[in-house]
Amino acid sequence: MRVIFNQELQQLGSDLQSMAQQVATAIERAAESLRHGDIIIAEQVIDADERINDLQRDIDDMCVMLLARQQPVAGDLRNVISALRMAQTLERQGDLARHIAAIARGRYPEPPVPEPVLGLILQMADHAVKAGQDVVRLIETQDLSLAAQIQTNDSELDALHRRSFQMILDPANELSRQQVVDAVLMGRFLERFGDHSTSVARRVAYLVSGQPVPETHDAEDADALH
Amino acid sequence: MRVIFNQELQQLGSDLQSMAQQVATAIERAAESLRHGDIIIAEQVIDADERINDLQRDIDDMCVMLLARQQPVAGDLRNVISALRMAQTLERQGDLARHIAAIARGRYPEPPVPEPVLGLILQMADHAVKAGQDVVRLIETQDLSLAAQIQTNDSELDALHRRSFQMILDPANELSRQQVVDAVLMGRFLERFGDHSTSVARRVAYLVSGQPVPETHDAEDADALH
Repeated sequence: MRVIFNQELQQLGSDLQSMAQQVATAIERAAESLRHGDIIIAEQVIDADERINDLQRDIDDMCVMLLARQQPVAGDLRNVISALRMAQTLERQGDLARHIAAIARGRYPEPPVPEPVLGLILQMADHAVKAGQDVVRLIETQDLSLAAQIQTNDSELDALHRRSFQMILDPANELSRQQVVDAVLMGRFLERFGDHSTSVARRVAYLVSGQPVPETHDAEDADALH
Repeated sequence: MRVIFNQELQQLGSDLQSMAQQVATAIERAAESLRHGDIIIAEQVIDADERINDLQRDIDDMCVMLLARQQPVAGDLRNVISALRMAQTLERQGDLARHIAAIARGRYPEPPVPEPVLGLILQMADHAVKAGQDVVRLIETQDLSLAAQIQTNDSELDALHRRSFQMILDPANELSRQQVVDAVLMGRFLERFGDHSTSVARRVAYLVSGQPVPETHDAEDADALH
């Protein structure tokens, strides 16, 4: 029984890893579609999101099945519950990558916003891409220095997000209303993507160390509004 | 043992109900702070969010404790996992109500946006308030006609959200850039609030009927972007 359970936990771990990898690819491509105005890549991101959603359903079913059949306790229970939550978070990140790609596609062949706002949004996108990649490596290696790195990266992303509002409001930057709308939405999606990566990092850190890492309940995010 | 477990499940249900009630109050007050430019009420919403976050932590701890000690199966297991997820969703709704109140506070004593955009945002807020109230009644009564009502209300909210973009882009509506930013963010927060209510409604429907209700994975939300 225990052998089977261990195999199932391993399967769960590898499914989560594969889901994190697909999310990392999605945000990389979403960033690329913004940077190069590439509608083909934008559409790949949009289409691929269905597979991320399917993976979440699979992981969910597997977790519920494991809880019912194996009735895990202690560390195993923590593992299964964390998997449930990480899958939910990763699914949401897939949605956010899709939303960004949808903006790139919607404005094609123009970039959604002109410079210098575009440059700032791309810098935010680079941070989101890094977050996605670090989460894959963190799940793979359980190296907690990566968890700390993801948090630092996210603080930088939040700072860029605050700067994006200043830039959007600066009358020296010529922007149509559509461009203001797009810049606000892209900023928000990227900032949320980063928050979710931090949330996954916190869960992995908790699993590895056994120490709960307090949630910040997106205080940063609220601060960015005024 | 079973008697204790039933008591604990009941406690869990009443904690969820209390959390849903606090979220409903938060969105009601956030809407009021927008409608009347009331900074006192806006601050109440912001301060009260900490209690919603605490409730989530309590429900989380209780669910994990129940899973570890009682090792529930079948319907009981489904109940506990759903409680975990609903608490997470309600916590997020509390954040969104807080963000809306933060915008109202940040622009005080002016309303964040002028008419007719304000009117549309307030209509969206009314739908969010209705969603919050219906979720409380749904958790209390388990009356599935409410779940259907929540979904219909959310479709209307999505339609209003799409209209908000048209209104924001219409040059006939005089808006500063700050007002465009605020309108986009408020629209987004309200629309997400509605999505989360639908997600809670779906989970309750699943618990009551035993039939999974497919997630829409916020397709509507993506549609609103182009």
